[in-house]
Amino acid sequence: MASSIFIQTSFPSKSVNKFLNTHFIPSFKLPVSLSFKPRTTMPKRVSVRAGLIEPDGGKLVDLHVAEPEQELKKREAALLPRVKLTKIDLQWVHVLSEGWASPLTGFMKESEFLQTLHFNSLRLDDGSFVNMSVPIVLAIDDSQKERIGESNSVALVDSDDQPVAILSNIEIYKHPKEERIARTWGTTAPGLPYVEETVTNAGNWLIGGDLQVIEPIKYHDGLDRFRLSPVQLRQEFERRNADAVFAFQLRNPVHNGHALLMTDTRRRLLEMGYKNPILLLHPLGGYTKADDVPLTWRMKQHEKVLEDGVLDPETTVVSIFPSPMHYAGPTEVQWHAKARINAGANFYIVGRDPAGMGHPVEKRDLYDADHGKKVLSMAPGLERLNILPFRVAAYDKTQGKMAFFDPSRAQDFLFISGTKMRTLAKNKENPPDGFMCPGGWKVLVEYYDSLTYSDNGRIPEAVRA
Amino acid sequence: MASSIFIQTSFPSKSVNKFLNTHFIPSFKLPVSLSFKPRTTMPKRVSVRAGLIEPDGGKLVDLHVAEPEQELKKREAALLPRVKLTKIDLQWVHVLSEGWASPLTGFMKESEFLQTLHFNSLRLDDGSFVNMSVPIVLAIDDSQKERIGESNSVALVDSDDQPVAILSNIEIYKHPKEERIARTWGTTAPGLPYVEETVTNAGNWLIGGDLQVIEPIKYHDGLDRFRLSPVQLRQEFERRNADAVFAFQLRNPVHNGHALLMTDTRRRLLEMGYKNPILLLHPLGGYTKADDVPLTWRMKQHEKVLEDGVLDPETTVVSIFPSPMHYAGPTEVQWHAKARINAGANFYIVGRDPAGMGHPVEKRDLYDADHGKKVLSMAPGLERLNILPFRVAAYDKTQGKMAFFDPSRAQDFLFISGTKMRTLAKNKENPPDGFMCPGGWKVLVEYYDSLTYSDNGRIPEAVRA
Repeated sequence: MASSIFIQTSFPSKSVNKFLNTHFIPSFKLPVSLSFKPRTTMPKRVSVRAGLIEPDGGKLVDLHVAEPEQELKKREAALLPRVKLTKIDLQWVHVLSEGWASPLTGFMKESEFLQTLHFNSLRLDDGSFVNMSVPIVLAIDDSQKERIGESNSVALVDSDDQPVAILSNIEIYKHPKEERIARTWGTTAPGLPYVEETVTNAGNWLIGGDLQVIEPIKYHDGLDRFRLSPVQLRQEFERRNADAVFAFQLRNPVHNGHALLMTDTRRRLLEMGYKNPILLLHPLGGYTKADDVPLTWRMKQHEKVLEDGVLDPETTVVSIFPSPMHYAGPTEVQWHAKARINAGANFYIVGRDPAGMGHPVEKRDLYDADHGKKVLSMAPGLERLNILPFRVAAYDKTQGKMAFFDPSRAQDFLFISGTKMRTLAKNKENPPDGFMCPGGWKVLVEYYDSLTYSDNGRIPEAVRA
Repeated sequence: MASSIFIQTSFPSKSVNKFLNTHFIPSFKLPVSLSFKPRTTMPKRVSVRAGLIEPDGGKLVDLHVAEPEQELKKREAALLPRVKLTKIDLQWVHVLSEGWASPLTGFMKESEFLQTLHFNSLRLDDGSFVNMSVPIVLAIDDSQKERIGESNSVALVDSDDQPVAILSNIEIYKHPKEERIARTWGTTAPGLPYVEETVTNAGNWLIGGDLQVIEPIKYHDGLDRFRLSPVQLRQEFERRNADAVFAFQLRNPVHNGHALLMTDTRRRLLEMGYKNPILLLHPLGGYTKADDVPLTWRMKQHEKVLEDGVLDPETTVVSIFPSPMHYAGPTEVQWHAKARINAGANFYIVGRDPAGMGHPVEKRDLYDADHGKKVLSMAPGLERLNILPFRVAAYDKTQGKMAFFDPSRAQDFLFISGTKMRTLAKNKENPPDGFMCPGGWKVLVEYYDSLTYSDNGRIPEAVRA
């Protein structure tokens, strides 16, 4: 039954089974034909087969230094002015290095930053547009700027001062924080998680340039083998002879409403005439806010859900999307979609209020729940992507399972919000039968239990993804 | 010397002279071939000759009801639910009616509003983009929405309840004020003039639809004849056999630095090989903030400056741009440029900090002074427009006149800010010789003098443009 070749390492859990290895794809060695070639300033690009959707800009950007050059680059980095990366900066280095943001070749320079803020898109040399909705920028402060001086390159180092990458052809420009926040989030209210984490206390300058990443970014959290690059995902889709790839972005535990949606999407694609649509189930793995379920626990939960066989292992690929989360609603959902084009997806599922959250100050959702899918369907650079709007699923009391909401018998349906779900799990109560598989629910209960033990019920900083 | 045919009415001032009639173009009757034809829902479009830049969307929108139908439309309007227009709403009706915002055919529906906020551009049916950076929307409150009910059309009425227009195929959607402000201005700080005037206390709903304007909008302020529509401007440029039209947007008194810039631009265009570049000197005539010089006084000042012969009447057209002012910097400058494409301009002069102002709360400019020209040069839908970045002019003390700033001898230059200029004029002091012609300066002194007499030095509401 299992068709995957990626049965090389086991999932760090007692419940590894035959389903797992077909859903979760552990890491593997790149074939020789894709091994990294030396480069100087121009980014290396990896060509892909014609079957899948073309990456933005025509070629996938790859910003890794070839192995034979790594030592040289480390020595080069040691001589350069240093910029220390935060955890989130490092996630962006990862995102950029693998070409999720193709055709970007590094942290944004001012012209890219301004186009992102004002147009959510970048104009290429041939006059065409690619989508780019969230600024991928690196902030530095006055003293760092002074230390860099007239240097044309800087070394980006991790928290242990180890060189991670070289940024060359640099451009330093003002960091207009208020404007960046207002134009990205549509509010400047205090309490936006990503803003508080990365903007408010960041430096007053941004530094852009071309990135050369010395070694592939790893997190050593037991999940690295699930972090497939766009090149690796494209290879897997081709290996499976996918004639359509539909991506499902998520940052929450999977319930049966999600599963219904994914299986129904596949059914619709088959009806449209596709022979082998493959699902990319793609949980976000970068920074998430403190009250979201951390990646490690989500991956455990996804595993249990998959063990239940709710999704077909033959037609599902599970991998981690390395981007941090902005919670920027209609602006961010474009980034989520655009990055998946680069990973080979030509269909994108979008639900109610994607990348949304409650307003940090007012008692309402920050974004109109329908704006995300509307903006996505109109966004420049995403014309090639087929947007599949989410049908709202709710718990159908008459059937005892999740089903598409039927407004003609609204009284039969129960909407179980994230807050409701969290409250139930915290209180070790069960949701209605058929809302989530028992194994998956148990993981959630365990997660909230661990919080109670670890920190008296408060969300500890340490469990953040 | 004077080549204009528009010598039909005199300027309401004692100093009418031969220069005036060539610079300021009074109103005139449209030739029969352009008279308005009846239409139902589709907007009427007026074709233009191939010589000038094409309007956005290929045809100029004209939303006026043909004269024979006006009485019928008035009776139709009397039966519809009413929406009362503010002064600024009426300015937008004017802007829309004449096709400055082509291809928009009325106040924005939600899809246009969202594209404006997120992309500063609208995608047309053929996949191409036109620029559209400021929302042109009409707000209504809960009770108005209720009164409209299920009606498909509403009557737009003026302050005397007289019908101005019919809005049909209406769509009512939520007015996300905070998001609109943040994405348009890049700040939500209190004190943004246009926001306080039109957004803060406006209704919680927006109403979009197709506009039919019953009679051309007039202000009866003695300046209507200077308000040429895009069609009229295009006719004038063609009559003068322009092979290039360069637009200069302004909302301030003209000083010799501006004049230098405009004459130098013409020189550059001649060098580029154009035979007959025509300047569109295009003061903004809609809403401006209380401490700007009102339109009537600015027009008097422009007249005096033109009397001085600083600009060549043969190659200059002066007209009023009916749009209200947003003070939204890089976002708004796109609107200023886009509207001038529709009026036939293929070159657009952009200076330091266009459409900018001081931050309403912090002690700094709201926008980076260079962002306007950068954003303009990258804006989707403006590719056809040649952007001419402003060279900074300052008072050259060695020459005793305005000249392009030469950083190699910075000490020779004096920068005279708007604040400095206002302070001098208020105190009836003179600026350095050569900064502004004496007649123009006298108008400014008279204006500030009139404020002192009328309201003890405070800016009276009544003099707002």
